[in-house]
Amino acid sequence: MHSFKGVIPYLVSPVNDDGTVRAEVLATLCEDLIGAGVHGLTPLGSTGEFAYLSYTQKVTVVAATVKAAARRVPVIAGVAATTTADAVRQAKEWVGLGCDGILAILEAFFPLQDENIYSYFRAIAEAVQVPIVLYTNPSFQRSDLSIGVIQRLSQIDNIVAIKDASSNTGRLLSIMNACGGKMDVLSASAHIPACVMLAGGKGWMAGPACVIPRLSVKLYNLCLDRKWDAAMELQRHLWRLNQAFARYNLAACIKGGLTLQGYNVGDPLPPQPPLAEEGRKDLKQILATMDQINCD
Amino acid sequence: MHSFKGVIPYLVSPVNDDGTVRAEVLATLCEDLIGAGVHGLTPLGSTGEFAYLSYTQKVTVVAATVKAAARRVPVIAGVAATTTADAVRQAKEWVGLGCDGILAILEAFFPLQDENIYSYFRAIAEAVQVPIVLYTNPSFQRSDLSIGVIQRLSQIDNIVAIKDASSNTGRLLSIMNACGGKMDVLSASAHIPACVMLAGGKGWMAGPACVIPRLSVKLYNLCLDRKWDAAMELQRHLWRLNQAFARYNLAACIKGGLTLQGYNVGDPLPPQPPLAEEGRKDLKQILATMDQINCD
Amino acid sequence: MHSFKGVIPYLVSPVNDDGTVRAEVLATLCEDLIGAGVHGLTPLGSTGEFAYLSYTQKVTVVAATVKAAARRVPVIAGVAATTTADAVRQAKEWVGLGCDGILAILEAFFPLQDENIYSYFRAIAEAVQVPIVLYTNPSFQRSDLSIGVIQRLSQIDNIVAIKDASSNTGRLLSIMNACGGKMDVLSASAHIPACVMLAGGKGWMAGPACVIPRLSVKLYNLCLDRKWDAAMELQRHLWRLNQAFARYNLAACIKGGLTLQGYNVGDPLPPQPPLAEEGRKDLKQILATMDQINCD
Amino acid sequence: MHSFKGVIPYLVSPVNDDGTVRAEVLATLCEDLIGAGVHGLTPLGSTGEFAYLSYTQKVTVVAATVKAAARRVPVIAGVAATTTADAVRQAKEWVGLGCDGILAILEAFFPLQDENIYSYFRAIAEAVQVPIVLYTNPSFQRSDLSIGVIQRLSQIDNIVAIKDASSNTGRLLSIMNACGGKMDVLSASAHIPACVMLAGGKGWMAGPACVIPRLSVKLYNLCLDRKWDAAMELQRHLWRLNQAFARYNLAACIKGGLTLQGYNVGDPLPPQPPLAEEGRKDLKQILATMDQINCD
Repeated sequence: MHSFKGVIPYLVSPVNDDGTVRAEVLATLCEDLIGAGVHGLTPLGSTGEFAYLSYTQKVTVVAATVKAAARRVPVIAGVAATTTADAVRQAKEWVGLGCDGILAILEAFFPLQDENIYSYFRAIAEAVQVPIVLYTNPSFQRSDLSIGVIQRLSQIDNIVAIKDASSNTGRLLSIMNACGGKMDVLSASAHIPACVMLAGGKGWMAGPACVIPRLSVKLYNLCLDRKWDAAMELQRHLWRLNQAFARYNLAACIKGGLTLQGYNVGDPLPPQPPLAEEGRKDLKQILATMDQINCD
Repeated sequence: MHSFKGVIPYLVSPVNDDGTVRAEVLATLCEDLIGAGVHGLTPLGSTGEFAYLSYTQKVTVVAATVKAAARRVPVIAGVAATTTADAVRQAKEWVGLGCDGILAILEAFFPLQDENIYSYFRAIAEAVQVPIVLYTNPSFQRSDLSIGVIQRLSQIDNIVAIKDASSNTGRLLSIMNACGGKMDVLSASAHIPACVMLAGGKGWMAGPACVIPRLSVKLYNLCLDRKWDAAMELQRHLWRLNQAFARYNLAACIKGGLTLQGYNVGDPLPPQPPLAEEGRKDLKQILATMDQINCD
Repeated sequence: MHSFKGVIPYLVSPVNDDGTVRAEVLATLCEDLIGAGVHGLTPLGSTGEFAYLSYTQKVTVVAATVKAAARRVPVIAGVAATTTADAVRQAKEWVGLGCDGILAILEAFFPLQDENIYSYFRAIAEAVQVPIVLYTNPSFQRSDLSIGVIQRLSQIDNIVAIKDASSNTGRLLSIMNACGGKMDVLSASAHIPACVMLAGGKGWMAGPACVIPRLSVKLYNLCLDRKWDAAMELQRHLWRLNQAFARYNLAACIKGGLTLQGYNVGDPLPPQPPLAEEGRKDLKQILATMDQINCD
Repeated sequence: MHSFKGVIPYLVSPVNDDGTVRAEVLATLCEDLIGAGVHGLTPLGSTGEFAYLSYTQKVTVVAATVKAAARRVPVIAGVAATTTADAVRQAKEWVGLGCDGILAILEAFFPLQDENIYSYFRAIAEAVQVPIVLYTNPSFQRSDLSIGVIQRLSQIDNIVAIKDASSNTGRLLSIMNACGGKMDVLSASAHIPACVMLAGGKGWMAGPACVIPRLSVKLYNLCLDRKWDAAMELQRHLWRLNQAFARYNLAACIKGGLTLQGYNVGDPLPPQPPLAEEGRKDLKQILATMDQINCD
């Protein structure tokens, strides 16, 4: 089964006050990101507020992304649920809408054992034919994937990669060691992408790539060319943006950054607050320094 | 605005493998609980797997409970959402179905500030005319209610009570001290109900009351009669059940206990595991000791 | 083996800037506490900054307390160490200095298994002939005592009681249920003492009793007389002090409160900050309300 | 002020059952490590059980290390205390014994504010003339250093480096960005050293280097030569050892590994358990794979 690689932005979900999705704003953003050279698009990741959207809103977001991508880059859409049944339903629906891959997320309320966690992800993989990327984020989620579970899941043919959004970069190398080439690793914005690439990563899925797609692609290409010192030199500058995103609410930040760049993506869904004045200033200043970096 | 008091069981949500709700099993359980003297019923609490049900399943559970209660005891249904809009929609719907109160729960993914948390609960209170009980459970939820927020919310007319499911019993007295009589406190199964009653509590909302309704009512009446030593003597025995419920997944335990008692409530929704053999034995033995206590 | 009961203040450790102990200030405080009717004295508890004192300072504090107590009330001194050897050495030394009991505390850096934790406390109990009180405080310590370990330790003849400084009051009842009368339970300032007494507790060891000894003894006597409603009425007022102590650094608060009352106990050892201006005001106001309560 | 770089093993502290230090075993280990090419030695780090040794034991360990090093490589000894006074005393004593640098560690019981944390480290820096390396380990310590505090401390002339033992590798780049070249960063065993070197690190201080000094030096040299792909190829193999050390008690593991290699370093101080049979087997197998790697 093929896998995914490169720079894959976590898209925001622009929603009006009345709950309708601004599909045309999302389409423009997707068009521009593809023009900037990104290698895939992910709707309904954490930055895409998967935890805040209704089923109807999710359907609209996925359909709009698939249409905008127009098969030029793969669309890997987020499936997130507390029950296996709901996850399977979403996965089938997203694939039916034309998605090329699934980003599989386990939500939980009561604690689960490894066996239950394994069964959840296996059920998603069995429900669809497309490649699956596992996602785990111990900061915000009530469950985490142990390395033992990841290793077992790597044996399933269409589970091809993992995006680990912990900040524990050593864990990524442990996962690669444990899975012996059967599980690609993608970086999150909490890791230093250039370091993950050196360690054997295949790319990154992250919100900040929405705001600096060209610089992200440039960094990726330097890594591909194994020009590690030049990559780290660029990485050092770009990292300021990841620092800002860790400081503020992730969705608020990316929506705030895109608004500064002229995309009418609106605010996060209430009661989440929009990016505050101080964050906006901070972000504006950081984006200005990014503009001075040569993207070629 | 009137409030709620007494023993208010957190109902389980019996669901078939195909996702349909076993409304008749729920009805039988409600009938028996009312017969045992409970003072209210709460569908869609944590024990009721609010985090695992679809909107359609929730509607069915609430409607079945309202019908079974037949106005003999108040029904206080759980509203749980990550967005204000979804919470308001649920609250209006549950009241439309005939609920007498709302148990308001805030789900979260990204962290929130006090101001955002306040706005969420205020919006629910403004959307309906019935009394609201706040619910907070720091063990499983990604947000908690500070005493400052609770105090501010106590100023809103139809926010009448709080059920704090932390295990920090001192915090309940702090809440009473802070709110000066404007916020009733209800115990959870993580607190010792007799102690909370002594401290000024008005009753308890908890899963174990589904399994031992008569003994729970007996304990409540001893507290009402201020026979504290007799109450504690009984409490000491009943506490073994609360200990068991803390040891296992809450929903699995109550469903397991009810199954042992002949209610065909089924298992928790997958990937949650059913109560394991060891837990079933443990529970069976505890329930046997309960049967030897005189309920009169 | 006899045990301990009643109001047992956690003494502060007054230390000069040059590190010498103000033994005479400590003696005056002990004299006044005994005059107020307390039932025991505990030097080197958490409020006594056991984690901050050198061995020499600890010896001086214990010796001064034993001398001041003059056998009128038992002295139960804190032993705290990361190694078994150090704990045994302290316990023998404190008993040699004339202590009547040991408060045994396990410090840890790397995580320990139950078996290691058990061996540590057993070694202390075997090293001395006096009764041992276990102490556990999961908020500040890097180890906690499981109920299984507590139950095993309750089988040792001179391990007589536990002071659990978690805020989980239900756990105290679980401990009593598990140990079947072989382990007395003492409340900490994080619990509501009157509730712990109702649940079967024998008294409390806590910093606030240094500042309000007479009111504490009055509360204890109401509990002994099983006048639970009157006890809770008083408890409600006294709780404001416990709330304040939870808000600020424990040692800084008690030292600040005693300074306001005219005891020249000084500040906590640096780099701990003294109680800040805001805390001093808060405490002054709370102590003023305490003065209006009739102590007789 | 000069700084430190390269491979700096965290030494174990071999202690007999009666508490005496096995100085000759420590001397042999130091001699072998220097022979293997390490760039410095650190007694009294976490692996060196600083949290478990008496003052007398610490003095012996430091003196033995200084003597064994014989000025061939710098000795950077750990200072760890809860009070400023104790830390200053240790720092002066270690420098008096001939240490070339201080690894400064803040122990805490009650929480501290940034200002207090800053004052603690500044006092150590002012007490001695040698370079200071800050150490922070949020997994085991009750305090952490914020980036704001690290930045302020970087302004002090003889605070030259930080060893951050969190597993958050991105934080290291944030520290470098914040301190603008005034704070060298050293990796810990929880980070991937080759990644930290690529990101601008100067070397690593870690227990595993005691067991594989030659391979560690080889890895360091590949990094120095900027042969990043070859470095990562070697790193991938060595990482299995770091994974093992994270699985078991750090001190138990390094002592267990050294025992397997013929160093009579004994067990960790009780009640810490020695490395269990399963861990010994695991470690033996990992060390065998290391022996097959060419060290030249």
